[in-house]
Amino acid sequence: MWPCSDPLMAVATVAIAFTVVLGPRWFVTATHSENPDRITSLPNQPTTVNFHQYSGYVIVNEKKGRALFYYFVEAETKAAYKPLVLWFNGDTLAGCSSLGGGALIEHGPFKVNGESLIQNHYSWNTEANMLYVESPAGVGFSYSNNTAFYSNITDVVSAEDNFMFLQRWFQKFPQYKGRDLYIAGEAYAGGHYVPLLAQRIHNSNLKIKLKGIAIGNPLLDIQVDANALDQYWWSHGLISDAAFHLLNSVCNASRLVTEGITSSLSPHCIFVATNVSKELSPAIDYFDVVAGDACPSVNASEFADLDRNDPLRFTLFRDFLHGQSTREDRDPCVGEFVAKYLNRKDVQKALHAKVVGFSEWRRCRLRKEWKYDLRNRLVPTIDIVGALVKSKIRVLVYSGDQDSALPFTGTRTLVDSLAKSLDLYPTERYRAWFADKKVGGWTQAYGKFLSFAIVRGASQRTAQTQPKRSLLLFKSFLAGKPLPEA
Amino acid sequence: MWPCSDPLMAVATVAIAFTVVLGPRWFVTATHSENPDRITSLPNQPTTVNFHQYSGYVIVNEKKGRALFYYFVEAETKAAYKPLVLWFNGDTLAGCSSLGGGALIEHGPFKVNGESLIQNHYSWNTEANMLYVESPAGVGFSYSNNTAFYSNITDVVSAEDNFMFLQRWFQKFPQYKGRDLYIAGEAYAGGHYVPLLAQRIHNSNLKIKLKGIAIGNPLLDIQVDANALDQYWWSHGLISDAAFHLLNSVCNASRLVTEGITSSLSPHCIFVATNVSKELSPAIDYFDVVAGDACPSVNASEFADLDRNDPLRFTLFRDFLHGQSTREDRDPCVGEFVAKYLNRKDVQKALHAKVVGFSEWRRCRLRKEWKYDLRNRLVPTIDIVGALVKSKIRVLVYSGDQDSALPFTGTRTLVDSLAKSLDLYPTERYRAWFADKKVGGWTQAYGKFLSFAIVRGASQRTAQTQPKRSLLLFKSFLAGKPLPEA
Repeated sequence: MWPCSDPLMAVATVAIAFTVVLGPRWFVTATHSENPDRITSLPNQPTTVNFHQYSGYVIVNEKKGRALFYYFVEAETKAAYKPLVLWFNGDTLAGCSSLGGGALIEHGPFKVNGESLIQNHYSWNTEANMLYVESPAGVGFSYSNNTAFYSNITDVVSAEDNFMFLQRWFQKFPQYKGRDLYIAGEAYAGGHYVPLLAQRIHNSNLKIKLKGIAIGNPLLDIQVDANALDQYWWSHGLISDAAFHLLNSVCNASRLVTEGITSSLSPHCIFVATNVSKELSPAIDYFDVVAGDACPSVNASEFADLDRNDPLRFTLFRDFLHGQSTREDRDPCVGEFVAKYLNRKDVQKALHAKVVGFSEWRRCRLRKEWKYDLRNRLVPTIDIVGALVKSKIRVLVYSGDQDSALPFTGTRTLVDSLAKSLDLYPTERYRAWFADKKVGGWTQAYGKFLSFAIVRGASQRTAQTQPKRSLLLFKSFLAGKPLPEA
Repeated sequence: MWPCSDPLMAVATVAIAFTVVLGPRWFVTATHSENPDRITSLPNQPTTVNFHQYSGYVIVNEKKGRALFYYFVEAETKAAYKPLVLWFNGDTLAGCSSLGGGALIEHGPFKVNGESLIQNHYSWNTEANMLYVESPAGVGFSYSNNTAFYSNITDVVSAEDNFMFLQRWFQKFPQYKGRDLYIAGEAYAGGHYVPLLAQRIHNSNLKIKLKGIAIGNPLLDIQVDANALDQYWWSHGLISDAAFHLLNSVCNASRLVTEGITSSLSPHCIFVATNVSKELSPAIDYFDVVAGDACPSVNASEFADLDRNDPLRFTLFRDFLHGQSTREDRDPCVGEFVAKYLNRKDVQKALHAKVVGFSEWRRCRLRKEWKYDLRNRLVPTIDIVGALVKSKIRVLVYSGDQDSALPFTGTRTLVDSLAKSLDLYPTERYRAWFADKKVGGWTQAYGKFLSFAIVRGASQRTAQTQPKRSLLLFKSFLAGKPLPEA
């Protein structure tokens, strides 16, 4: 089928020769050309692409017809020696795509620029083989043939589907099964999907080398995370002393969120939400509060089902509950270009993707068509993270400091408390870390397996707003090294 | 002396004709060519300068030989109809120049670019006649022939000198005596020099039309302002939960500062200062904490007398007490260019300036050569501000939200408390204000004469880091209008 002059075949031949010395992985990675999920080329991609891309479906439940879509980019160089990193975006309010978010907006090899793809110089595939999963079913190109699935998705179901996904993905890519594995994600996905999947893998008998997890601006414990909101808003100018006082004395944010989720809103909390939300400007990007301004068209479309004139719903759903950024500001409204690109028929064909059950690919699903059980937000996952640390799985918890939806302050407190409860003493005192001789953020490490880092000047989507600093953080994490001190 | 074809004489002739209709001010503003303080041209200034500049000395104490230097720029257009605004930089730790700071770095008509002056498109002289005063003696080009003066300067002396300055300046510029007057300044100057001078003017019998004051990131009450530090540092990532806890439970910042000033440091506070300062990175610009990185050369020179290796002194003097920004970051180390420019002999000649008693012009004086009584920092001035409000003098208190030395949070609380104590109800609820359809900050107004505004994305030197937003704020203040709502 392939002529002998095919450079890939030549590489394969050399690889076979090396196999004797280096073991079997060289051989199997050389078989990519036979993989039906291999992407020949993405429409309008840069001409110089020196790594392999794959995408397609993994059926996670035959009976119910659920299949998860993935996009896999091998490392730019020495893929066979680099770890495998699974990335999750996701949200319980509006399921958000890892392909459209993590890959195409944050740290994938390409960014969407108008109708073209351009190279991302800070792509995480310079350091690892990156596997972006659209999860749960209904998100992005992932689907369920049984649409009743969408009406009540839970953490248990999504963790099980993600676990099944990984096992079956390894059947497609057996050369990666023995590879060092890291799982990463942000916001709700970082706090729930990632720890739950890591726990599931760790408790299984499968020979998967799970080395660590990296979770960004994660929702770990709503009692701490939600109550960090008032304090963050107040200390960053968004609300007045009076509003802050109301939240502190009448109904705090975690109570407000809890009452909202359990449909038991008290008059006290309605009063507070109504008053506070009058101060919260719709022009602010709450996921990038210092630098960002909201993208008007995103507001118009992605929040179409939220009544912006109803302060209570607005506050509850947009600001308190919506833990996944759907705004873009440094590159305003880039989400629109991503959606346009991924809705092109030629792009879907190249990706082996299809839109099932929805009219179009959307980066985040509307709440009316896709409902994750919001009560899962009330279940803390910080102890699962603690159990992983105890099992010697490396945990990096990091935060973009400009996110007011899941503020670093709450996350930092949770990590610090976790360390204390595990009797871990700081192995690295709280200090600034550096990128390019500038302060890239702050960091602290506890024992050998737990560390915390702030990415300075970053939104919830750290790698979008601070790509260089985020790549350095990612690289240090994979290497198990402290962040630079100068 | 002037040929008849001199265009200024022609203007004067026309002006005299208009005097009959418009009253005397046209006439007197037309006499500027006879004023010996008039600046013909500043070396390397832009070729198109359409306003008049003056500078020189006003003797404020003949007996002791004290003279204050001023730089006055008339409004770009319709100077005769625009108010007079007095601007003060200043600091009790390191006396800082209004010419080198306010005028040449913040909101004057020119900025220093290498060896040249370039136009500042957001100069405040588009809205007002700006009078920059270097005060007290010893600051910038101002001097005292009796150098003993420098060993113990106080608020009382500086207010009296500033008051004398203004009276005698009006003798030089009688056309401005009846003009609407505003006084503005920032940091220590905003909290002390400005309110004290305003009070002195108001209590005098002089017919000066003092309309309002505008004070930026002012030190108004150290009990509130200093205690806002810990909270701000913690909520912006600079210190850990542990350090925050130490400050909250063992020795808070206002106690630390007070003990430092009164030379009564307790072991508890030394312990806290030592531990906290280990976390505070010297690479951070504490006056622009979100965006800025410290200027290394400024650290090396302007803080030469502070031992950076002594954490206590470092913390106390650099971070807690030093209420005047001496860093520049958006335009790194611009202070150096300013100092080079103002130390040129041709520049000093053009400015009618001289360096008396010091080896060179410096933007900020070193503590060893110039000592303001730091105990003045312990005296609250918030009630003086309240008295001005009661006297129907308009007060704008504003804050750059990136300053961690005099954080907006403490200032906002002080203004809110002042309004309550004066029984002023909000006439403008706490809300975002807009510049260029982006959120320029937040604002609140109380009664007719008191308002508060945050300038978003601004350092302590608001007009340097957010020139457009600051000019809009200044314009609205002078017009007595609320900030734009959209």
